[in-house]
Amino acid sequence: MSDIKAALLAQAIETPSWAYGNSGTRFKVFAQRGVPRDPYEKLADAAQVHAFTGVAPSVALHIPWDRVDDYADLAAHASNLGVRIGAINSNVFQDDDYMLGSVTSPDARVRRKATDHLLECVDVMDATGSDTLKLWFSDGTNYPGQDDIRSRQDRLAESLAEVYDRLGEHQRFLLEYKLFEPAFYTTDVPDWGTAYAHCVKLGPKAQVVVDTGHHAPGTNIEFIVAFLLREGKLGGFDFNSRFYADDDLMAGAADPFQLFRIMFEVVRGGGYTEDVAFMLDQCHNIEPKIAGQIRSVMNVQEATAKALLVDRAALAAAQSAGDVLGANGVFMDAYNTDVRPLLAEVRAERGLDPDPMAAYARSGYFEKIVAERVGGAQAGWGA
Amino acid sequence: MSDIKAALLAQAIETPSWAYGNSGTRFKVFAQRGVPRDPYEKLADAAQVHAFTGVAPSVALHIPWDRVDDYADLAAHASNLGVRIGAINSNVFQDDDYMLGSVTSPDARVRRKATDHLLECVDVMDATGSDTLKLWFSDGTNYPGQDDIRSRQDRLAESLAEVYDRLGEHQRFLLEYKLFEPAFYTTDVPDWGTAYAHCVKLGPKAQVVVDTGHHAPGTNIEFIVAFLLREGKLGGFDFNSRFYADDDLMAGAADPFQLFRIMFEVVRGGGYTEDVAFMLDQCHNIEPKIAGQIRSVMNVQEATAKALLVDRAALAAAQSAGDVLGANGVFMDAYNTDVRPLLAEVRAERGLDPDPMAAYARSGYFEKIVAERVGGAQAGWGA
Amino acid sequence: MSDIKAALLAQAIETPSWAYGNSGTRFKVFAQRGVPRDPYEKLADAAQVHAFTGVAPSVALHIPWDRVDDYADLAAHASNLGVRIGAINSNVFQDDDYMLGSVTSPDARVRRKATDHLLECVDVMDATGSDTLKLWFSDGTNYPGQDDIRSRQDRLAESLAEVYDRLGEHQRFLLEYKLFEPAFYTTDVPDWGTAYAHCVKLGPKAQVVVDTGHHAPGTNIEFIVAFLLREGKLGGFDFNSRFYADDDLMAGAADPFQLFRIMFEVVRGGGYTEDVAFMLDQCHNIEPKIAGQIRSVMNVQEATAKALLVDRAALAAAQSAGDVLGANGVFMDAYNTDVRPLLAEVRAERGLDPDPMAAYARSGYFEKIVAERVGGAQAGWGA
Amino acid sequence: MSDIKAALLAQAIETPSWAYGNSGTRFKVFAQRGVPRDPYEKLADAAQVHAFTGVAPSVALHIPWDRVDDYADLAAHASNLGVRIGAINSNVFQDDDYMLGSVTSPDARVRRKATDHLLECVDVMDATGSDTLKLWFSDGTNYPGQDDIRSRQDRLAESLAEVYDRLGEHQRFLLEYKLFEPAFYTTDVPDWGTAYAHCVKLGPKAQVVVDTGHHAPGTNIEFIVAFLLREGKLGGFDFNSRFYADDDLMAGAADPFQLFRIMFEVVRGGGYTEDVAFMLDQCHNIEPKIAGQIRSVMNVQEATAKALLVDRAALAAAQSAGDVLGANGVFMDAYNTDVRPLLAEVRAERGLDPDPMAAYARSGYFEKIVAERVGGAQAGWGA
Repeated sequence: MSDIKAALLAQAIETPSWAYGNSGTRFKVFAQRGVPRDPYEKLADAAQVHAFTGVAPSVALHIPWDRVDDYADLAAHASNLGVRIGAINSNVFQDDDYMLGSVTSPDARVRRKATDHLLECVDVMDATGSDTLKLWFSDGTNYPGQDDIRSRQDRLAESLAEVYDRLGEHQRFLLEYKLFEPAFYTTDVPDWGTAYAHCVKLGPKAQVVVDTGHHAPGTNIEFIVAFLLREGKLGGFDFNSRFYADDDLMAGAADPFQLFRIMFEVVRGGGYTEDVAFMLDQCHNIEPKIAGQIRSVMNVQEATAKALLVDRAALAAAQSAGDVLGANGVFMDAYNTDVRPLLAEVRAERGLDPDPMAAYARSGYFEKIVAERVGGAQAGWGA
Repeated sequence: MSDIKAALLAQAIETPSWAYGNSGTRFKVFAQRGVPRDPYEKLADAAQVHAFTGVAPSVALHIPWDRVDDYADLAAHASNLGVRIGAINSNVFQDDDYMLGSVTSPDARVRRKATDHLLECVDVMDATGSDTLKLWFSDGTNYPGQDDIRSRQDRLAESLAEVYDRLGEHQRFLLEYKLFEPAFYTTDVPDWGTAYAHCVKLGPKAQVVVDTGHHAPGTNIEFIVAFLLREGKLGGFDFNSRFYADDDLMAGAADPFQLFRIMFEVVRGGGYTEDVAFMLDQCHNIEPKIAGQIRSVMNVQEATAKALLVDRAALAAAQSAGDVLGANGVFMDAYNTDVRPLLAEVRAERGLDPDPMAAYARSGYFEKIVAERVGGAQAGWGA
Repeated sequence: MSDIKAALLAQAIETPSWAYGNSGTRFKVFAQRGVPRDPYEKLADAAQVHAFTGVAPSVALHIPWDRVDDYADLAAHASNLGVRIGAINSNVFQDDDYMLGSVTSPDARVRRKATDHLLECVDVMDATGSDTLKLWFSDGTNYPGQDDIRSRQDRLAESLAEVYDRLGEHQRFLLEYKLFEPAFYTTDVPDWGTAYAHCVKLGPKAQVVVDTGHHAPGTNIEFIVAFLLREGKLGGFDFNSRFYADDDLMAGAADPFQLFRIMFEVVRGGGYTEDVAFMLDQCHNIEPKIAGQIRSVMNVQEATAKALLVDRAALAAAQSAGDVLGANGVFMDAYNTDVRPLLAEVRAERGLDPDPMAAYARSGYFEKIVAERVGGAQAGWGA
Repeated sequence: MSDIKAALLAQAIETPSWAYGNSGTRFKVFAQRGVPRDPYEKLADAAQVHAFTGVAPSVALHIPWDRVDDYADLAAHASNLGVRIGAINSNVFQDDDYMLGSVTSPDARVRRKATDHLLECVDVMDATGSDTLKLWFSDGTNYPGQDDIRSRQDRLAESLAEVYDRLGEHQRFLLEYKLFEPAFYTTDVPDWGTAYAHCVKLGPKAQVVVDTGHHAPGTNIEFIVAFLLREGKLGGFDFNSRFYADDDLMAGAADPFQLFRIMFEVVRGGGYTEDVAFMLDQCHNIEPKIAGQIRSVMNVQEATAKALLVDRAALAAAQSAGDVLGANGVFMDAYNTDVRPLLAEVRAERGLDPDPMAAYARSGYFEKIVAERVGGAQAGWGA
């Protein structure tokens, strides 16, 4: 048990700066009170999540949403708040030029602009000390015949190669895949196989990132996790949960059993290390954002604790005996365990309140930001 | 064949005012040139679709997007342009008050406000002469436990009853269902069964509208169409097409065979009359809007022509003989027919150009609006 | 807590006779050792499930798989074993005559034969004292145009009406729906809406049964449960679980959180009574059958216990306050509780072993039937 | 046009021996009249498909269903009938030993047996002159925890390597993937990415085969085709169509537009050569088998003709201009063309009846086999 506690203490879950801003659907972005107005305020909110959970020490940035004049200053600000800058997320989907694609656009000028933005993101990595670049391409087409599927792969490969070559010695990029949205017919990196194939060709600094909301219905995500770990190509996760499509709900909210199965494969596959980044990527459209992040972090912790509790020896014995119900029983024993007391203990040992949600609510932070952050443009996906 | 031509000449497909404005996804709304800045300009664009196709004589409004001071003036404007006002679409999803629902909100004040808006829409019907109110509720929840599923049905029923009672003698409402989005856990009217059950209780002025993009993967939409027609509860369609979720692509673009099957059930079930409204409801995120509407109207026409071409006697004979391949063969013969020459003839007989896309392109209308509509706020989902 | 214990003690979960026979996929039915060879042996196995769990007092029959000369004798046999006959399941899908449908076949002779079989099932109800007839129709088509969708509804309605009229005073039928399989284009009762519409027209003795594996991907089953309870039309469940289609895995195995949400709606909607039948309907293709049933019964019990544990007052308070995270938190508190100790207590108070799986394993029953049931034809879906 | 005709004349579509035997679902296999009773009779039926279409010159075998004492004799029989032996399909899913897997079973003895069967299939290739081995593994698990996902990959890799090494100079194997069924939790080769990754490691003789019914809902199959062609890893197709899961309906019956899009990518990607095998793999559960195959072959031909008709120059011009509607229009022009007259011409030039369905019906072959093939066990998936 002390091993498990130690493992839980050592966990690091990265929260995304954009989760603290307003988000929504194409139908409406509901504005919430106290929402940050700039990257500095986002970091302040993220620091709260770390303060109450103890396992959220880094914050992912999104460029250009978090573009600042002085990244070193931003990094110092983070440090003062007790957190650090995590992965740099590129954005090549919000400029009018990208209507028909970014790095895969039929227009060479647009492709150049998009690739230049990716290279700029590596500059930000250099400036902030970040070692991870996250690449998500919304590129695709809406109508059959609109563009040439294969040519777009050629263009993608060319851009990725240029960015890969620009990476420093201790830097890597994670290539994200997504089934659909915003493209509704083809997506240029629609599945793990596509991301994997590109990464294998590029080399060890290119890895796949699994966003848990980016799959077709029925996809077995833990299989993908196990497979990528076996290949040394799992770079990390964008955690969130979904009932339908890319719903971006709080991690663990829709299918906590799935999250447990994923974490089990991480543990079993040797991915519970610094090499695999645990990142949140979700939208709090109707719930308060900081509290929503705390709940999500706790959900990931609970899934992790259960995964660590699986009696691996008993499981292996039942599996090799072909004992279907026995093996499933060992697995479910861990899942059915209430790990909240264990995590409360872990927090207490760390000097934290055992109930982060309640402690945050009592802290008055929310009331403070509601009072202070009046005026100015709230941060959101477009700001 | 003259019967078929007559039927094709008589077809009426309603286009939606919002299709002429900018639209997009949560990631980005790409602005296009020449987009209308007010309801009057939207009607002007819609009139072009009718001018070139001859089968798009009415335009659906969306309140409050198309709110004007003088609806009689707007109706007169439409009439001058050769079109008329069609269905009135309510909107209870874009006010901050509706974050947790509109007519199903746990907050009585919000419910009152939402119902009042629906009643206002009936006022607009009175003012414009529209006989159809379209009700779509984005209401639902994002998280298990967030609200009480059943109480929300009670609230929904209460509001619908109030609106139903307000309807005039020749007015009706169409209740729309949708699997998900923007709600990501429960939706209060998620499927045709829910809409149907409410409409049956309310009476003959309440009918179901089928949006072809609002179903779970694998749903057989033509079955629903056949079933609702048998029950006298099919009020109309919101046509669009999708590969994944509610993609809102051009009708017939993703699965033209499905559109044909749907139109066949309409014809077979006696729904090819004024009682069933054929409306488009789609977004032209990356393609030009007027041309996109013309293409969609033509796609619906082609599916209709094929449906009308099915040799019903031969089909019935093969069906009762249990001749699986024979019956399928009769059905596919119609689908595999190239009906474009037939539709070109129909257009020529009406005095239209046989190729509406080319004729519109040649007309210079697009260049004209691009030049004229400079400045001002372009219309979109939020305007 | 004593209320909850009482409720758990009173639960009754029906197991299906066919679960004890061999089952499989179209690719292969794997024969298992000790499988029953006739309905008497199936009842003996079912009695074991009840002996170890205390909550499986009845057994559903499937006609003709469980056809016997003397149903009174079979019922007496059940009684001697401590169980009773539950729902009678009709079968109009395994005769060569039903290739193109049973009650919806284009052939009047086949329809007559099918309806006669359903009437025979009511005779079996009379003979066994069963009060519930379960109707599942595999009827549908594989190819567009193969048969007329609407005529098939007419035929279905006609047959259902005849069966409905034959029901005795204390008898009812449950109409089952299923998205697809074995029909691959249309299914004549594909969704709850279709089943509901037919049942409403027929009257109070016709209700809908929800098989948890019969929905399109993404369907919110608990919504359907809540809706049908509100309408007084939920007759019962066929529990099983699935990752993909109608996988028929053990209840609670694929998505235990979903099973909890369903049971919560049952409790909340007043359906936790004798009026709503909790039945298992699943296949143990690769795991031992009796143990598989025991595990499934326990999974349903655990979901029920959690549903009963939800703090309804706190939930309602958070819901009406619009406290999204608070309401979700109350809901999840119940789900995250480890209810196995509570259920162990309940069993102990009833004089049962707290661990039914282990107790059954120790009992030697499996070894006994393996030794005894040698020779003869094992029961399966075709026997 | 003469190029297109030449291409259509040169097309070769392989039919599968098992399509001529009885098939069905887990619920029922409906026996049909005149069904073959051995591999020789299957080849005779397959020869009819070639006789009337002229483009089905080879027949895939399935071992052990088509096991014979003298494969040279079987090959000679085929030759006499005007056809030849095509791909050899292995079967490691119908032996009781394979309940928990074949090459991925936790039991080393079972793995050895399975691999030995695969090696035997290469022997059959040597004996029949077949150059293609098709590998489909039903291997997987039904319950979380049942077996170790990653270890199963290790076992799979080991077996594949042994088979790969056994292949002769001009032989290759095609690795098939499938989302689910018969395994309902994990499948060991569930998607193209998994198949691709194994094939890349093995070398040029290992390629991926795309069964059009084996994907998750919403998967863009033509993207996969384009991607695999770009990588030189597309070995061929198992054509069939589906509305839901692996329905195995006639190719082109469910979504003819999808089949066209797939064929377009084949043509565009240089895959319209001997290197990519066009095979049918479908079940005629309710329709006559030979006629069902003829219809399927014709559907593939029609999709191919349309794909060849696409005006590639106009398409490329519209694509590079970013003309969304123009490019889609060029694409749809080809799809909307009625290519049946063209194919009738191609057949006539070859000396065939322009209407294969009618010609076969007139031939009296069906009546002959119904009369002759009385007695004996009909071939099916188990025989």
